[in-house]
Amino acid sequence: MTSADQYLAELGQQLRVDAVRATSKAGSGHPTSSMSAADLMAVLLARHLRYDFDWPDHPGNDRLILSKGHASPLLYAAYKAAGAITDEELGTYRTLGSRLEGHPTPRLPWVDVATGSLGQGLPIGAGVALAGQRLQEAESRVWVLTGDSELAEGSVWEAFEHAGYERLASLTAILDINRLGQRGPTRHEWDLDAYARRIAAFDWHTIEVDGHDLAAIDAAYREAASVTDRPTAILARTQKGRGVAAVADQEGKHGKPMPDEAEAVEELGGVRDLRVDVRRPEATTVPPRPGGGRVELPRYEVGEKVATRNAFGEALAALGAARPEVVALDGEVGDSTRAEFFAKRHPDRYFECYIAEQELVATAVGMAVRGWLPFAATFAAFLTRAHDFLRMATVSRVGLCVSGSHAGVAIGEDGPSQMGLEDLAMFRALHESTVLYPCDANQAAQLVAEMAEESGVRYLRTSRGADPVIYGEDERFPVGGSKLLRSSAEDRLTVVAAGVTVHEALRAADELAEEGVPVRVVDLYSVKPVDAAALREAAELTGCLLTVEDHRHAGGLGDAVLDAFSDGRPVPRLLRLAVDTMPGSATPDEQLRAAGIDAGAIATAARRYLAGYG
Amino acid sequence: MTSADQYLAELGQQLRVDAVRATSKAGSGHPTSSMSAADLMAVLLARHLRYDFDWPDHPGNDRLILSKGHASPLLYAAYKAAGAITDEELGTYRTLGSRLEGHPTPRLPWVDVATGSLGQGLPIGAGVALAGQRLQEAESRVWVLTGDSELAEGSVWEAFEHAGYERLASLTAILDINRLGQRGPTRHEWDLDAYARRIAAFDWHTIEVDGHDLAAIDAAYREAASVTDRPTAILARTQKGRGVAAVADQEGKHGKPMPDEAEAVEELGGVRDLRVDVRRPEATTVPPRPGGGRVELPRYEVGEKVATRNAFGEALAALGAARPEVVALDGEVGDSTRAEFFAKRHPDRYFECYIAEQELVATAVGMAVRGWLPFAATFAAFLTRAHDFLRMATVSRVGLCVSGSHAGVAIGEDGPSQMGLEDLAMFRALHESTVLYPCDANQAAQLVAEMAEESGVRYLRTSRGADPVIYGEDERFPVGGSKLLRSSAEDRLTVVAAGVTVHEALRAADELAEEGVPVRVVDLYSVKPVDAAALREAAELTGCLLTVEDHRHAGGLGDAVLDAFSDGRPVPRLLRLAVDTMPGSATPDEQLRAAGIDAGAIATAARRYLAGYG
Repeated sequence: MTSADQYLAELGQQLRVDAVRATSKAGSGHPTSSMSAADLMAVLLARHLRYDFDWPDHPGNDRLILSKGHASPLLYAAYKAAGAITDEELGTYRTLGSRLEGHPTPRLPWVDVATGSLGQGLPIGAGVALAGQRLQEAESRVWVLTGDSELAEGSVWEAFEHAGYERLASLTAILDINRLGQRGPTRHEWDLDAYARRIAAFDWHTIEVDGHDLAAIDAAYREAASVTDRPTAILARTQKGRGVAAVADQEGKHGKPMPDEAEAVEELGGVRDLRVDVRRPEATTVPPRPGGGRVELPRYEVGEKVATRNAFGEALAALGAARPEVVALDGEVGDSTRAEFFAKRHPDRYFECYIAEQELVATAVGMAVRGWLPFAATFAAFLTRAHDFLRMATVSRVGLCVSGSHAGVAIGEDGPSQMGLEDLAMFRALHESTVLYPCDANQAAQLVAEMAEESGVRYLRTSRGADPVIYGEDERFPVGGSKLLRSSAEDRLTVVAAGVTVHEALRAADELAEEGVPVRVVDLYSVKPVDAAALREAAELTGCLLTVEDHRHAGGLGDAVLDAFSDGRPVPRLLRLAVDTMPGSATPDEQLRAAGIDAGAIATAARRYLAGYG
Repeated sequence: MTSADQYLAELGQQLRVDAVRATSKAGSGHPTSSMSAADLMAVLLARHLRYDFDWPDHPGNDRLILSKGHASPLLYAAYKAAGAITDEELGTYRTLGSRLEGHPTPRLPWVDVATGSLGQGLPIGAGVALAGQRLQEAESRVWVLTGDSELAEGSVWEAFEHAGYERLASLTAILDINRLGQRGPTRHEWDLDAYARRIAAFDWHTIEVDGHDLAAIDAAYREAASVTDRPTAILARTQKGRGVAAVADQEGKHGKPMPDEAEAVEELGGVRDLRVDVRRPEATTVPPRPGGGRVELPRYEVGEKVATRNAFGEALAALGAARPEVVALDGEVGDSTRAEFFAKRHPDRYFECYIAEQELVATAVGMAVRGWLPFAATFAAFLTRAHDFLRMATVSRVGLCVSGSHAGVAIGEDGPSQMGLEDLAMFRALHESTVLYPCDANQAAQLVAEMAEESGVRYLRTSRGADPVIYGEDERFPVGGSKLLRSSAEDRLTVVAAGVTVHEALRAADELAEEGVPVRVVDLYSVKPVDAAALREAAELTGCLLTVEDHRHAGGLGDAVLDAFSDGRPVPRLLRLAVDTMPGSATPDEQLRAAGIDAGAIATAARRYLAGYG
């Protein structure tokens, strides 16, 4: 063994020791999952990673994503070896207020995305690499360290397909194949050929190595960097708990500190304090240039019939012209969501992700990591496929715009499989999300520009059908606002609607007004946050809120209005119209009627309430 | 061409013609996607499928799943050819009240599961085949007809892996590779080798055929049936819109009726009325025997500290002993969810699906199709991966029990990636779902037995940590009920809690009682449906509901209580405590405190309310 190899061996042992110490002190965590990958990490850190820990946003930095997030002690031990954190901070692992959480999050400046939900690191890494290669001509590499259990996740295969097809040579997947999952052996255990066969079939270069042979690991990383026409997967045969006989390669040792810390540390050769001078990036690549150009939004004439999805597409294309950091991603339905309008004007910033919604959102997250402002679009219904990626995007504090088209029963004949009926509930429950639901084209266009200014996960719900434009071209729609569309001093109740039901509510209000029953109509286009002031005023004046929505009862508009009344103040009476049937096929009008959310249903509900209570 | 071949050719053309006629009459739908697979369907129907259309539940029936659900006209044309529906009913396609929806649903007795969200047919088919082979020794075959676009979905690769690993020889995937997706060409177009390489790598037998060569198709089906050690994928090169020159193999023709119906029908040789005598199954296989045995649930002593996940596992094992139709499915975390307790008692009915939550739920759906009562379990947080499969399970009217463990911030150190904080919102929004959230072990055990008696998608939320048992062994917990844990005639407000927050609420109530402020405590273990009577009574008596939940604000317990007040009646005042922080690592107690949902936060909120309003 050369002295260089000796150094790497010592470094690997140090990472193990520090993982053992951190988890023992915390009384929980995953030392054995860290120990299997310690040699892979040591060689990467000392020889191949280019990273400036003092400048995490350096555009030339490599990216390192620990997809097996439970092996966080290994990552933190590596940060310590690189001098980024102290041994003292390492000792705060998993305690209240520490940046060293059980699974890595961007509370640490060197962590780009949170991991811990398995199977997300590679899909996101593909997005980071795609942005680097297609948008920035970056020379930096993307290293993703995954476990073997998580290779069962379909999202990983979406990523293998995507990265292979896009020939993302800057992406290297390091597969820590330690044979043991949480509950027991994985499907393929140490059958590295099984993995290699599958991954190679997706047009990746594959390398099989002994994950504890430092020279072999080093050679594999070099080989990966030399392959210029495809991504590389390094399949490393490793031992879970490597280095401590009491736990090595044994079932039942997942997610548990060492049985005897002192003994384990001694067996690993004791505590060390090696420091690694991680190579800094040489070249800077071109970062996205956040634009401040004036957005020339499309404008629509009042009365014109335009689908909000069309306005979304046209506004997105306009936004892209003003803001060069905007990118659009499609789930192979761009002709339906109208994201295609962006594609026509900005083909270089349009990314076809095919029918793989997890990869769609993951790619968007990856691009956000590199400073781009992504808009991902598919049918609202199919965004449920990406729920876990959206959830984790909030843990990653990533800025991400999403549009879901074909909202609700109003899509008509296609039937329930294509109807977004649970999307508002899903997006409202996401941490610090913004949820917008326009009813006309001018509003939709304005909201596209508004959402670009927000942070976190932002959702725009669009409709398939063409409804008349009701707002003038210069009307403004701030996030958190609403529009009062019908009102008088004698209003008997308030109809709160959004999207397609705004038009139904207006019809119902006009019908009731003719009967001498004035009702107020609020367009609650900002579903989260809601316009608390307007709702409270409506409640005080009319005493009753009748919500009507093309969505399931739970989690949507009807629940959203309560956000304005949850502080102990008096709550107005509530009537809720929402979809509680299982729709079939029918025309849009028939669907609204059958679901009981059309003008007639609104008027009927209002009359019944006023006869009984009002 | 033999006369037999001539017959098949004519049948294929009839299916095309009927698909053209149905979509032209409807004015929407997907004829071109139907026409590519017409020959594949014709040969299957006439020569290979064994199915008794008069007895859809015949246990010996083959199963046919149209994963590319948008090609429903082809399926309905096949039903017509089989004599199951009339030409008149075919003419009702996509109209209000018709069983022939835009995408197939079990409104038709021969449709086992709804499709239309792509990439679901094969995962579910794997579940059907697994039940058939491992539980029933069925001789029937499972045929899944998929498109090529949907092969981008990761869920499909979860299924290839699962079925290949389990050697599901009774499963045949028929891949209609027509080169064109909705928006344009697919990634691999007609590169059948690209697909074959990938699928074969997952240990499937593959056959490449010309999808319009009837003899080759026939031979491929025969070959598939002869392979006894692995599933088979038939990769068929086809033409979208085959048979009509105006649309054949052209972009921009997806999801549109023929430009000229009469011309298309003429080009296809005119209307025919061939009838197919579909072969009936010969043998019956053993169906699951729904059990009525008495369930000997585990019993826990009051005061004992037991995690509800443990009670779930023990109760599930007990349920399995009494009811032979119960099966359990694990996402490789059975030691955490405690589904493993079932595995130990009933290893033959326990299915390891590894870390692939879409496949986990799809397999459960597939088993339900064959009459089994599945319980699928993983972390609550990771069930978000399966959101679209859960959504579609409701369209399929499938009976399915799901348990999500590790609810909320109370899990402690592992951090937000592992915390189920959006699960109640997700499950509440599902059509006709049941949502249960126990706070102690006896309650959890009882609810496992209760959920087995419900229909639709049922969800049980369990906790990681051990809390004291507060209910006696003989207490009952009907779905839709609640428990009044503290009450007096002078109660000043009502705390509504569930799960871990019940214990916090009790502590807060006791603290407040000592201060001379009596408050009512309701354990709302049935989150959907809620106990409207109890909530209304509490509202009338105390005027204010303070909900406290280990979940995000939106869509959970706080919203659920409003289900009792949405009919125009007076609404009580509302206070809501829920998680609106982004948690990090901390102990369970620290987490509850930091999120503001512990006893102290409840008492403080009550005091502030009573000082200001009460």
